[in-house]
Amino acid sequence: MEQDTRCAEILCIGTELLMGNVVNTNAAYIAKELAGLGINLYHQSVVGDNPARLKESLSLAFSRADIVITTGGLGPTYDDLSKETIAAYFGRKLVLHEPSYQRMCAYFASIGREMTENNKKQAYMPEGCTVFDNPNGTAPGCCIEQDGKTVMMLPGPPREMKPMFDHWCVPILRRGSHTKLVSKNLHFFGIGESTLENKLHDLMESSLNPTVAPYAKTGEVMLRVTASVTDESEAEALMAPVLAQISEAAGEFLYGVDVGDLQTAAVHLLKEKGLHVATAESCTGGLVSKRLTEVSGSSEVFECGICCYSNRIKAELLGVKENTLRTFGAVSREAAAEMAAGVRRLSGADIGISVTGNAGPSASEGKPVGLVYIGVDSLPYREVIELHIRRTDEDAREYIRWLASSNALDQILKAAKKF
Amino acid sequence: MEQDTRCAEILCIGTELLMGNVVNTNAAYIAKELAGLGINLYHQSVVGDNPARLKESLSLAFSRADIVITTGGLGPTYDDLSKETIAAYFGRKLVLHEPSYQRMCAYFASIGREMTENNKKQAYMPEGCTVFDNPNGTAPGCCIEQDGKTVMMLPGPPREMKPMFDHWCVPILRRGSHTKLVSKNLHFFGIGESTLENKLHDLMESSLNPTVAPYAKTGEVMLRVTASVTDESEAEALMAPVLAQISEAAGEFLYGVDVGDLQTAAVHLLKEKGLHVATAESCTGGLVSKRLTEVSGSSEVFECGICCYSNRIKAELLGVKENTLRTFGAVSREAAAEMAAGVRRLSGADIGISVTGNAGPSASEGKPVGLVYIGVDSLPYREVIELHIRRTDEDAREYIRWLASSNALDQILKAAKKF
Repeated sequence: MEQDTRCAEILCIGTELLMGNVVNTNAAYIAKELAGLGINLYHQSVVGDNPARLKESLSLAFSRADIVITTGGLGPTYDDLSKETIAAYFGRKLVLHEPSYQRMCAYFASIGREMTENNKKQAYMPEGCTVFDNPNGTAPGCCIEQDGKTVMMLPGPPREMKPMFDHWCVPILRRGSHTKLVSKNLHFFGIGESTLENKLHDLMESSLNPTVAPYAKTGEVMLRVTASVTDESEAEALMAPVLAQISEAAGEFLYGVDVGDLQTAAVHLLKEKGLHVATAESCTGGLVSKRLTEVSGSSEVFECGICCYSNRIKAELLGVKENTLRTFGAVSREAAAEMAAGVRRLSGADIGISVTGNAGPSASEGKPVGLVYIGVDSLPYREVIELHIRRTDEDAREYIRWLASSNALDQILKAAKKF
Repeated sequence: MEQDTRCAEILCIGTELLMGNVVNTNAAYIAKELAGLGINLYHQSVVGDNPARLKESLSLAFSRADIVITTGGLGPTYDDLSKETIAAYFGRKLVLHEPSYQRMCAYFASIGREMTENNKKQAYMPEGCTVFDNPNGTAPGCCIEQDGKTVMMLPGPPREMKPMFDHWCVPILRRGSHTKLVSKNLHFFGIGESTLENKLHDLMESSLNPTVAPYAKTGEVMLRVTASVTDESEAEALMAPVLAQISEAAGEFLYGVDVGDLQTAAVHLLKEKGLHVATAESCTGGLVSKRLTEVSGSSEVFECGICCYSNRIKAELLGVKENTLRTFGAVSREAAAEMAAGVRRLSGADIGISVTGNAGPSASEGKPVGLVYIGVDSLPYREVIELHIRRTDEDAREYIRWLASSNALDQILKAAKKF
């Protein structure tokens, strides 16, 4: 197997990134794509909209790598100077790119606005570059290839950058590549990263092809198994024994392979089985229904969601007994069970799921922050689980709500499997 | 006014960051804090868990800056090598830090698990460093100050890193500081970044103290006005004329100052006026109620939310007329109005808000993707607004839902102001 020896760097340009006003999702996106292409990446950097420091950073990047991918600084404003600076580094002038200019004129005409002079600046491109047109914004990107160096300049807004990367950069980057990385993502819920790592430590350290690497998401763990191959057809056989070992060690916690996330897994399973779900949420305030309905096609499986903050709504709409609320409180095993049954009855869904708990910031009705009950009601599976989510920092509220909603989605999966 | 001449760099360590499996929120957090402290920052970098490249990056950072703040690589696993590498750079040995070791032992005892040998590694700290204890995790951080250089090592998980930065790093960083940056964040909704920038272009370019910088969030714009002062009491007077100019140019779109976001502004205003709100959501699937209930204290103003995906629920629960659904469809001005009125009636809230639309991926009932109606029902203010959200990429669904929910929150603000 021939190793790809090309090396890339990511250089993100923008004072708003440097100052922390925008989180750098572009670097993560490009890095993942480069890994998928089998191109080595050892450095990511961020600099502000400052020509001198940008030039320095570019020199440094090219002293370590053959390919530099930049984001940002292509826009119309006076501090957008990436193209100017990088073109100068390569000794090239900027010239008006007529097709880009025409496209921009047409765009401004279509929205009934006049194109200002500073917008025209975006149509000036380095002489002899490959222009990347931008169907999602005004600033085109471009690529300069010179003296064995390749620079690709992409716009800063992620929704412009990503499609441009996929459409323009990937084919250019594929040209010289011999190896290919094929990955499978294994999604686990209900097991911590360190516990999973302990179970699989030897495998993770010893397996070189495929490699096994853990990634923690909030409340979940993902293992990525990656095979390096010259032909995709070899991947399956390389991966099979490793996947079998993982499944044996922690299969009960594995909720899906390449399935994205809990809500996607839940919606797909419900759809497959022709089931409907309805939600009754208190402390999560709609987060479970929000996550379910993120998934395209969820309208086929999601019947309705009731977000019942007040006790009156719990009683009137969901039929939670006054006595239950009085005796056990709204945050109780009993209330969770009645909420789940109530929303199932109200909606006619196959599965009713409820969440009631205290997400903080302070104890209420004597119930501590982080105490959450998840209720499930369905013919084959009826359950209430109790969670104690310990967390006290300023993000505790969102963390508790997120983990509660993840557990609710996990319970939907568990219920659907019983049908 | 004396300018702070100290310069810092952020160096984030971790293969999962480098490969793009984790988005680098740490860099953004630290960068913002440094700006608040008036410390210059010109470079952020990311390297993997590789001692040779880490050492190189550290040398480079110290050739440009006096202070280097690192995140990551302090954990128990074999590839966590930040402390070892950085200690060696400063010619220091690692020695067991007894208090950290005892705290770790106590922690593992409290959760009833045995402490493994690799965990003990986390209690070895560079000789003579300041140890940052970590109440939110096992790995302590630390600070080495030597030869005019300061390095601060922080753990990778944001929920451990942030409180440690606030508690330990800020006081150390404050020591040498003379100037202070005081900022006000102005939040706008309903106006695009470029339109706002056009209106304020001269001000933004010419005003040096305070500076005025725009930050776009999805569907919103924030302007940050930052004064550099030696005494906080000077800030108000410096900022006042600039704030007045901004307010004159775009005051109608300004929904709050230092208010965080639309949902916080809405909950605060409702609370202030003693009002209750209830939501009826179709295409946003609970996102409006989720955002409202994110805000601590929202239980005082949020009555209930109905997430009505199916027409049956719209009719039975909210009283949307069968005839309306048949004649105009669920995605219509008429349905939005009836949903808002219905949820207000059902809940007894002062303001009923509804969202119905098509978030995609494909047209349905002849309604195009991106067509959304927001209904408001209250005694003083009754309105339906129609949105056409144009977006076609793979994130379109989430974008449409987000923008629809932001408009709903904006309508809640508008309604509450009428009381």
